[in-house]
Amino acid sequence: MGIQSVENKAKEASRDVTPREYRMYIANKAVESPRKFLDVTNKYTGVVEAKVQLATHQDIDQAIDAAVKAQPAMAALGSYERKTILLQVVTELKRRSEEIAQLLTMECGKPIKDARGEVTRSIDTFQVAAEESTRIYGEHLPLDISPRNKGLQGIVRKFPIGPISMVSPWNFPLNLVAHKVAPALAVGCTFVLKPSSRTPLSALVLGEILETCELLPKGAFSILPVSREDADMFTVDERFKLLTFTGSGMAGWGMKARAGKKKVVMELGGNAPCIVEDLVPDLDYTIQRLVMGGFYQGGQSCIHMQRLYIHERLYDQVKHAFLEAVKKLKVGNPFDEDTFLGPMISESAAKGIEEWIHEAVEKGGKLLAGGHRSGSFLEPTVLENVPMEANARKEEIFGPVVLLYSYKDFKEAVDEANNTHYGLQSGVFTSDLNKAFYAFEHLEAGGVVLNDSPSVRVDSQPYGGLKDSGIQREGVKYAMEDMLEHKVLVMRNVGVL
Amino acid sequence: MGIQSVENKAKEASRDVTPREYRMYIANKAVESPRKFLDVTNKYTGVVEAKVQLATHQDIDQAIDAAVKAQPAMAALGSYERKTILLQVVTELKRRSEEIAQLLTMECGKPIKDARGEVTRSIDTFQVAAEESTRIYGEHLPLDISPRNKGLQGIVRKFPIGPISMVSPWNFPLNLVAHKVAPALAVGCTFVLKPSSRTPLSALVLGEILETCELLPKGAFSILPVSREDADMFTVDERFKLLTFTGSGMAGWGMKARAGKKKVVMELGGNAPCIVEDLVPDLDYTIQRLVMGGFYQGGQSCIHMQRLYIHERLYDQVKHAFLEAVKKLKVGNPFDEDTFLGPMISESAAKGIEEWIHEAVEKGGKLLAGGHRSGSFLEPTVLENVPMEANARKEEIFGPVVLLYSYKDFKEAVDEANNTHYGLQSGVFTSDLNKAFYAFEHLEAGGVVLNDSPSVRVDSQPYGGLKDSGIQREGVKYAMEDMLEHKVLVMRNVGVL
Amino acid sequence: MGIQSVENKAKEASRDVTPREYRMYIANKAVESPRKFLDVTNKYTGVVEAKVQLATHQDIDQAIDAAVKAQPAMAALGSYERKTILLQVVTELKRRSEEIAQLLTMECGKPIKDARGEVTRSIDTFQVAAEESTRIYGEHLPLDISPRNKGLQGIVRKFPIGPISMVSPWNFPLNLVAHKVAPALAVGCTFVLKPSSRTPLSALVLGEILETCELLPKGAFSILPVSREDADMFTVDERFKLLTFTGSGMAGWGMKARAGKKKVVMELGGNAPCIVEDLVPDLDYTIQRLVMGGFYQGGQSCIHMQRLYIHERLYDQVKHAFLEAVKKLKVGNPFDEDTFLGPMISESAAKGIEEWIHEAVEKGGKLLAGGHRSGSFLEPTVLENVPMEANARKEEIFGPVVLLYSYKDFKEAVDEANNTHYGLQSGVFTSDLNKAFYAFEHLEAGGVVLNDSPSVRVDSQPYGGLKDSGIQREGVKYAMEDMLEHKVLVMRNVGVL
Amino acid sequence: MGIQSVENKAKEASRDVTPREYRMYIANKAVESPRKFLDVTNKYTGVVEAKVQLATHQDIDQAIDAAVKAQPAMAALGSYERKTILLQVVTELKRRSEEIAQLLTMECGKPIKDARGEVTRSIDTFQVAAEESTRIYGEHLPLDISPRNKGLQGIVRKFPIGPISMVSPWNFPLNLVAHKVAPALAVGCTFVLKPSSRTPLSALVLGEILETCELLPKGAFSILPVSREDADMFTVDERFKLLTFTGSGMAGWGMKARAGKKKVVMELGGNAPCIVEDLVPDLDYTIQRLVMGGFYQGGQSCIHMQRLYIHERLYDQVKHAFLEAVKKLKVGNPFDEDTFLGPMISESAAKGIEEWIHEAVEKGGKLLAGGHRSGSFLEPTVLENVPMEANARKEEIFGPVVLLYSYKDFKEAVDEANNTHYGLQSGVFTSDLNKAFYAFEHLEAGGVVLNDSPSVRVDSQPYGGLKDSGIQREGVKYAMEDMLEHKVLVMRNVGVL
Repeated sequence: MGIQSVENKAKEASRDVTPREYRMYIANKAVESPRKFLDVTNKYTGVVEAKVQLATHQDIDQAIDAAVKAQPAMAALGSYERKTILLQVVTELKRRSEEIAQLLTMECGKPIKDARGEVTRSIDTFQVAAEESTRIYGEHLPLDISPRNKGLQGIVRKFPIGPISMVSPWNFPLNLVAHKVAPALAVGCTFVLKPSSRTPLSALVLGEILETCELLPKGAFSILPVSREDADMFTVDERFKLLTFTGSGMAGWGMKARAGKKKVVMELGGNAPCIVEDLVPDLDYTIQRLVMGGFYQGGQSCIHMQRLYIHERLYDQVKHAFLEAVKKLKVGNPFDEDTFLGPMISESAAKGIEEWIHEAVEKGGKLLAGGHRSGSFLEPTVLENVPMEANARKEEIFGPVVLLYSYKDFKEAVDEANNTHYGLQSGVFTSDLNKAFYAFEHLEAGGVVLNDSPSVRVDSQPYGGLKDSGIQREGVKYAMEDMLEHKVLVMRNVGVL
Repeated sequence: MGIQSVENKAKEASRDVTPREYRMYIANKAVESPRKFLDVTNKYTGVVEAKVQLATHQDIDQAIDAAVKAQPAMAALGSYERKTILLQVVTELKRRSEEIAQLLTMECGKPIKDARGEVTRSIDTFQVAAEESTRIYGEHLPLDISPRNKGLQGIVRKFPIGPISMVSPWNFPLNLVAHKVAPALAVGCTFVLKPSSRTPLSALVLGEILETCELLPKGAFSILPVSREDADMFTVDERFKLLTFTGSGMAGWGMKARAGKKKVVMELGGNAPCIVEDLVPDLDYTIQRLVMGGFYQGGQSCIHMQRLYIHERLYDQVKHAFLEAVKKLKVGNPFDEDTFLGPMISESAAKGIEEWIHEAVEKGGKLLAGGHRSGSFLEPTVLENVPMEANARKEEIFGPVVLLYSYKDFKEAVDEANNTHYGLQSGVFTSDLNKAFYAFEHLEAGGVVLNDSPSVRVDSQPYGGLKDSGIQREGVKYAMEDMLEHKVLVMRNVGVL
Repeated sequence: MGIQSVENKAKEASRDVTPREYRMYIANKAVESPRKFLDVTNKYTGVVEAKVQLATHQDIDQAIDAAVKAQPAMAALGSYERKTILLQVVTELKRRSEEIAQLLTMECGKPIKDARGEVTRSIDTFQVAAEESTRIYGEHLPLDISPRNKGLQGIVRKFPIGPISMVSPWNFPLNLVAHKVAPALAVGCTFVLKPSSRTPLSALVLGEILETCELLPKGAFSILPVSREDADMFTVDERFKLLTFTGSGMAGWGMKARAGKKKVVMELGGNAPCIVEDLVPDLDYTIQRLVMGGFYQGGQSCIHMQRLYIHERLYDQVKHAFLEAVKKLKVGNPFDEDTFLGPMISESAAKGIEEWIHEAVEKGGKLLAGGHRSGSFLEPTVLENVPMEANARKEEIFGPVVLLYSYKDFKEAVDEANNTHYGLQSGVFTSDLNKAFYAFEHLEAGGVVLNDSPSVRVDSQPYGGLKDSGIQREGVKYAMEDMLEHKVLVMRNVGVL
Repeated sequence: MGIQSVENKAKEASRDVTPREYRMYIANKAVESPRKFLDVTNKYTGVVEAKVQLATHQDIDQAIDAAVKAQPAMAALGSYERKTILLQVVTELKRRSEEIAQLLTMECGKPIKDARGEVTRSIDTFQVAAEESTRIYGEHLPLDISPRNKGLQGIVRKFPIGPISMVSPWNFPLNLVAHKVAPALAVGCTFVLKPSSRTPLSALVLGEILETCELLPKGAFSILPVSREDADMFTVDERFKLLTFTGSGMAGWGMKARAGKKKVVMELGGNAPCIVEDLVPDLDYTIQRLVMGGFYQGGQSCIHMQRLYIHERLYDQVKHAFLEAVKKLKVGNPFDEDTFLGPMISESAAKGIEEWIHEAVEKGGKLLAGGHRSGSFLEPTVLENVPMEANARKEEIFGPVVLLYSYKDFKEAVDEANNTHYGLQSGVFTSDLNKAFYAFEHLEAGGVVLNDSPSVRVDSQPYGGLKDSGIQREGVKYAMEDMLEHKVLVMRNVGVL
């Protein structure tokens, strides 16, 4: 079925819906008084299915103020109280998982299977945070390391850093919110969250859930859809002690510069390479993982496998099998169980990717598969030998596009994989011990995935990028670290009677 | 002896000296080609005793370039090689300790006893770093935390972050350099250091020592005195991966905003309070520690005890004994063994403090001791009940000034201690278990010192501030953490045959 | 109500019951073929309410054999599989909590409130283990610590030690089983458990639950009531890699000597002291905690507060209030909601304690309260100034007996508290910082409880004794440590291409 | 040169020497009063070169008593004081290194190069311990994991366990003493050491050094050569809190059974296998490491490579090259710089090995090289296909003997490597990632060495065996763990005002 007819089907599926209204949350409560609304479209049909309250500057100010005031009570919660809150979220997400998955598919356009996967992962994220909430260990230090320090000992404990500003993206509307909210609850930080304006709904459902958590001090959380113009306070307001942002590099680095005295955590883009030195354990499995890495969620992931480096002795074999597999990927209605690729997040996003594909071909790349667009739908696309100067090679392509390259020598492949300003994750298929560890040491990336695509992320692993891909790490307990301030108690001659 | 006659003596001590010339270091080598020179004065006599090469924009650029090129070789050093380098520094600092102490006293004006103490502490700092250099442990993680992640395990290792930009202050010209250089060597990061223009000499002696360390890859270090106007590259150059700055808050927060993508570590000012709830173990010891905290190095320390809160039942007793002790402090020639206070770093610094003392009195504070200035000399000064709106209360006073206050209730004392935009260290004298832990939990400071002044710092402790006092921590292994990038190796089905 | 009438009521409550039969578990399965039976009495009425299969020598041999064979499959379980098993146990314990609590009260005689508390704690124990099962972290070590070791690095991982022999006591028939079983499941060790012959029922219910856990490899667990004569294989069989025993010192140390090559964990008796230096925060709370420590479960706990040292300035006040509170404790039917003390585990146990009370008085102690026995019921008893040579002072008294002493000086109180061959836990009430830390450093006990009785145990804390009170620690993750064997992978020149 | 003529040369080298007298150490002091003497022979010439005081039962009792009395003072030493002591030992060992190496060669017969290596390693061991002595970290734990535990927090600190009984072997007379003494000093435990009666001299030199360490409390250490009959107190005396033994399995397991209540650390024998699956990185290097593993110190090491499993495709090539290399090994005077093998520790030991070689051949093994003995000298011996029932295959052969086997499949090689009652260390040469990790997971050994022989030991690595090879781990910080008792301070409502 051509990409044109996919779009036609989508248009046919459009029908009038009375949009459901969603309220935002200030200081733990759904807002009752009137506000402007933001339209949220069904990304498959283009129909406006939801209307979401838009926060004003005054709303944000009020939310921050509430977060500041609630912080002492939040910090005073016992470990088991923070855990209880997190487990309530787990329970509710489990209970409402299908509903939320449907919502995710609607607001984001991601295939329902992927949406269900995201809900499952979000449950994991909150569950891991619940378990970590009772494991914030401190240290006892001997400090009498020289005669001058005789009689000194120390205790290091970690305390919540204070109110957190959270800005999250549209591609994982729930789980990338979970990766900020769950650690904050685990450590006892209040927060104000700005979900993506394109996909705010599942975050607001989380608000619904949190609203019912009675242990949460009033003011502990606010969830505020905001237009980009009004969002500046999330970056600059000095009442926040941490700004945690997931999104594009351009936005992120600009925010870092204006963040003032607060700490920043930046989870930004990628341009993930994968090196196939061996078929591990065999061709079928390798291809299956490569296809997953390249086209999962239409490539709309920071760790989307964008570049595939294949050893020359395997090149033809892998290329052939990969193309065969790509051809079989079903593009279509994301609510269908067997759909692998839904629409891009927007027609303009799809157009941008299409342009980069054209540019890549113009600059010397060869189109091996796909390349067509209709509306917001894109065919899964494979290109070969796209040169460095093309955007598709150089920048992050947030779509279902994979670039193939052949190489002779493993070290050169690593160098070429590193030839980018990004450094989030990389993949390597090899059964060679030394190449595996060489890759770990030399691939410039926060994560190196062995014998899978770079697109693997376990929600408890340290996750984050080098170079332009970001600063600091997420992954529940790693995210918690940046939300905790270390304090030392230096004790002189304590215990001497 | 009045403060006027102290200054007269200092003037008398002035004599013509042929300034010694010091060379800066680019890419491990002393620079031979001609440069402009910076004058370094003897802070006691005011005589120019040294001339120091001044780096140009091109020098800095060349130094950064060398650091970037040397980074792979630096990262490839074995643990024992990094340790060997650090132990060579320890050996040389021990061998040359009296020479360096004299130099510190000359360039900084600090009493020779304090200068010797600083050398000893610097030796500790490098020794601790040598020991930590073989203890950079990683983690092995089970990642099969849910069915979807079956067969996954991970290894987390820490790798040097890359070239580091270091900017250090004048008040501890050697040890605050050591707290940046030693961790960098321990982890395997190259660096370019800008020592304070007022006190660059001991840093350059460190350059002399490092020049002889043959294991250090060429390009690993540069030490460049720079005028403030030319120093911008230390902040903005994106080839640096970390900016570590110790100095004033005004400078530091400005640098953070312009630091681009790199990480920042900021060790800034303080306004340290001390609460005396009990005499622990007795009056004499308490007073001795309070005087040390208030007047050590003329109060030219970030953790100078600026504010002293005394329980009302002890107020008169402590105030009296404190004033008695302050009167006995000898101000004078810093090269004399029995001098407790030398000159301030400059006459203009001394004048600024004098003005704040006057302002404090004008606004309602009472002068209990000291208050006079002559040239760069200041009397140790004690004020009472200085109101919040005076700079001496509100801001950091980098001089021999202590403010006394009485309080009734411990919680109020903690609140008042927290009533500042700084949060570096605090001191509490109490023998009460609950007050001690209440203080640990509630004093807004990176460090709480129990039964000593807030001025205690062990070189291996985590050290750094909350609020406007900075971001991140130093203290060798804590400083190393920010110089290390965490990478995870996610392994799928490894070990399956 | 006198103790005699309590016993009379108990006798009246006796009625004929058809004993329920309980089967033991070999290799995950309830045993179907006929065995001899052990009678289990209702400890309140004395009526046989259950009959439990008794394992033969052949049964034990078969169970060990199954455990050995199942070990590789058990070790191969993924983290999430071990976690799933543990969470199944949590779910079932929650579902059946009231049923199990009733069973505990019946088989053990403990008041129903305490039984419910034990079930709740057991749920915690399994929950903590579930969470720890995905947190068995290893280490990556730099091993190139000197030139000779150039190119070496290491990975340390923890592997299950192998089949575990477990022997558990009667006083917490479920939670002290949980403290062995849950960690074993968390790390992946198979086990054979011998519950106490007096109170095997709740352990067998746990067997019922585990039988339904399909992820557990066949052979992973056996639960075998055994007569003492036949129990020797639990100690001596070399197929076990670890023997973990909780019970009396006499039994435990004897087992250690015959344990062969296997590791041993011994959680033995105590003789817990408590020092009251201050009333923290006040008299009421202090008394409430002291009464709880002294008489909870009729003192049938390893951390029963046996000795109470009260500062002389507080002695009369505390003694008076303590005696008042003790008088109000209700002895009676453990199934009644308001009963504080039920029967002792047996009449002979009660008689033994009675004899020690008499001996204590004969040797100079003064009886302040209680002292009477009827059947298996004992009055809560308080003695004063019992001398060292009396068993009640010297040995562990496993009953509702507290000894009072007055002291002058805190250090002497600590010395006297240490004047015992036991060292499990100690309690200290003080608001003095130095006394608190002096106690921590000097009290010879695995745990020092501050401002509560020594009887506090959190199920996640490290728990275990010094001196004759045992060897090694329990407390889920601490117990797991001894069930894990550390292996190091030393890698030479890995990653070099 | 035949083995006979080597022995002849040794006999010729014999000459009359007046034996030097060595004193033992009780309570830090060399013993002055008369004692019986033990003869120590030069293992090359057979001449008695030293006479060593022999401890009586009373001496041991006195030493233990002193250790008990000194323990509180030892525990009270500051971190830097323990470090100072250890660094004094480092300094003295460096200063006297050649003297001690000569002594080691004399008393032990090990080649002078190996003796120097042992001294260097011992220096490392003490140096690592010095660094660890200031790094005994404790933990702060949140304990409020459920409502019942509200307000609880904990501190876990490690305290010295108490007086240690140390029994060390003859094959590394200094470094295996260092691995017990250095950790004990690092944690603050007093000790009584029984060095091997055959090689007590270097341990007594260590006594000489420790005698001069003035910070050591009187009584902190005793070093007592004892005849086996009188050594029982080292095992059974209950005043010791830990028995740490390195030696044969037969002795060790017997001691464990009689050790009473104390902890035991057992470092026993091995039967180390090495699997050559690939040549890594090439034949030359592989052979060089295999020869080192098989014949270093005449195979008198617990991790001597006894069994060599070679993949059949490499078998002939490796066998040939190995035999070539073995032929070149020089047997002779251990004081010669180019000697690779000196004498065995005794003629009877050599005879025992010779018998096992004969038995191996009788039972079907094939002698490929060596096999002859003259006096205490043995030729380096290589056997092929020695069957399981021969002692040379089944038991630990403490001599220069290597058994070759060919295998087809890696997993079978691992199974065969595991087919032994020992489990100390194993070696694997492979460049395959999965085989490497399979080996790590499945080889039953405390350590798996990748791409080197099993004989590698870094003094800071965890070291110790599974199965009959021992219990617990050594390796400075790992040894320290067993010398430290964990205590928890459980604090209720601390910090509440």
